[in-house]
Amino acid sequence: MSDEDDATTPPLVSFVAPSGTGKTTLLQSVIERLSADGYRVASVKHDAHRIELDTEGKDSWRLREAGSQDTLLVGRNQILWMGEDNDGPDLHALVRLFCPKADLVLVEGFRSAGLKTVWVQRSEIDDRTWAEPDRRNVIATVGPNDTEMVVDLLVDHYLNK
Amino acid sequence: MSDEDDATTPPLVSFVAPSGTGKTTLLQSVIERLSADGYRVASVKHDAHRIELDTEGKDSWRLREAGSQDTLLVGRNQILWMGEDNDGPDLHALVRLFCPKADLVLVEGFRSAGLKTVWVQRSEIDDRTWAEPDRRNVIATVGPNDTEMVVDLLVDHYLNK
Repeated sequence: MSDEDDATTPPLVSFVAPSGTGKTTLLQSVIERLSADGYRVASVKHDAHRIELDTEGKDSWRLREAGSQDTLLVGRNQILWMGEDNDGPDLHALVRLFCPKADLVLVEGFRSAGLKTVWVQRSEIDDRTWAEPDRRNVIATVGPNDTEMVVDLLVDHYLNK
Repeated sequence: MSDEDDATTPPLVSFVAPSGTGKTTLLQSVIERLSADGYRVASVKHDAHRIELDTEGKDSWRLREAGSQDTLLVGRNQILWMGEDNDGPDLHALVRLFCPKADLVLVEGFRSAGLKTVWVQRSEIDDRTWAEPDRRNVIATVGPNDTEMVVDLLVDHYLNK
């Protein structure tokens, strides 16, 4: 990514935690607080599950079956892309296109993107199969109820300029 | 759109017809033929209906409820954007991001985009409430079974270079 790209991409911060830690609940309360304070927040969630939408018989399904390699379904305020290759646009390109006005983009997942990371921990969760995030990217380690701490951190680092 | 943009956007051709004319069936057979001939075809469908995916209780719904103004759900080969404003990316920007490798992009709808247009007609359909496409953009008027004619036209104009 060039410097020029950087200039037009809102800041991205990733939240990582083992499943069941309360990451989405934390994100939800952080977004509520930031939105209430007037910030424009966007969010990105990585979802390994197939979006169950392209059902048999629907027009989009028919176009895909016919051989359309990229299919875009464009609705009012909603856009769905369905591709064939495992080479969709990268996260930064998506954010530049879809969230150009965001003050901050909060991201779940996307370990490989090397984003600044908030590591959400809860003592009861001890999933030894879970790989820890790259500590060089971790800007804070918090609990699932540390909304205030996370909000202050995000405002100080990314919004209070 | 600048000339520079043009250079990186695959050609787009719009298909318009009153509902019930057989437009999707025609597109399906055209895509089948072009794909069989080795062309990489993408398709874009305008869909006024809400994509029924963001259901109550799901994580993406929770983030939106919290105030996330743009929410991206990124899966393997599928990406869904849900926005708040009625100002999503324009068609050309979407195509550049999602279909950069396409040889041709076939589009349903998007009258206002001013694309080159194939007007699909069927004599039995006489919907007087339907507004005709801008004739300056119409490159062919065809019936719903004119697959060969459409394929030849598209190959001659956009693919046979």
